[in-house]
Amino acid sequence: MNEACFYCARDERLQQLMIEVCRFPFSTLYLSRDQSYSGRCIIAFREHRTEWFHLTRMERAPFIEEVALAAQAINDVFAPDKINYAVYGDIVSHLHVHLVPKYIGGARWGEAFDNNVAHPSACLPAEYDSAIDRLKTRLEQLWQLSTSEASEE
Amino acid sequence: MNEACFYCARDERLQQLMIEVCRFPFSTLYLSRDQSYSGRCIIAFREHRTEWFHLTRMERAPFIEEVALAAQAINDVFAPDKINYAVYGDIVSHLHVHLVPKYIGGARWGEAFDNNVAHPSACLPAEYDSAIDRLKTRLEQLWQLSTSEASEE
Repeated sequence: MNEACFYCARDERLQQLMIEVCRFPFSTLYLSRDQSYSGRCIIAFREHRTEWFHLTRMERAPFIEEVALAAQAINDVFAPDKINYAVYGDIVSHLHVHLVPKYIGGARWGEAFDNNVAHPSACLPAEYDSAIDRLKTRLEQLWQLSTSEASEE
Repeated sequence: MNEACFYCARDERLQQLMIEVCRFPFSTLYLSRDQSYSGRCIIAFREHRTEWFHLTRMERAPFIEEVALAAQAINDVFAPDKINYAVYGDIVSHLHVHLVPKYIGGARWGEAFDNNVAHPSACLPAEYDSAIDRLKTRLEQLWQLSTSEASEE
């Protein structure tokens, strides 16, 4: 826990940027308030770590499973042509992955997505709610599938 | 294997952009010829897949271990202040992670790294060789440690 970190504090600094979708065992998934890339999300590791190699092997494996599950749900709900996954964190160092759906003909197709959008595309509250509901429904289905597959291994 | 993909073909298109450092069981690590970010590398999954969720659980876990190991070696050799990790792939879709060391006061600190550098910073052959040698030495040490830890679990 790092008091100065908004991913740890989960305070209004975080709430201005994103809305919680759900909590996984090792991470929390958020919908970005900026929807310049329809379905854009952020998934943050549950503790204050800064690099992938600061996690233990027993933390990395489930966290990347949760990243993949979230990306799959975004893919299934929003039908992008590719998903971009990025960990930056020079300033906000708490390990978090930007999950950015990209669309052929859409913003920055073929380039790195714009991380600090000059004019973020905000939605109406009902649009955020709808996106979150659809993501949660799909995540619950995928979570059931993934846990039943894991128990069969 | 996708003949049109340079990560599959490992041909001159790839060699113009990067130099092989080593092969892991699930991936290949390359040093980027662009060294605008000192120590910049790329790690590519061994097969032609495009999204994290297209891997099986038994592929994701070792691949993220290899990503973390490579990032740790870059960290130990080049001493950056943060590492950025990015999977884009809108056009070159074969799953590969850009490992980009960032330095306080250096290029694009606090912003997304520049993926398509207008004037890539090339090195002399001896400088590439030296970087690769140092990375390989550190990777061998870390690999030994990681496999001995795994066998103790």
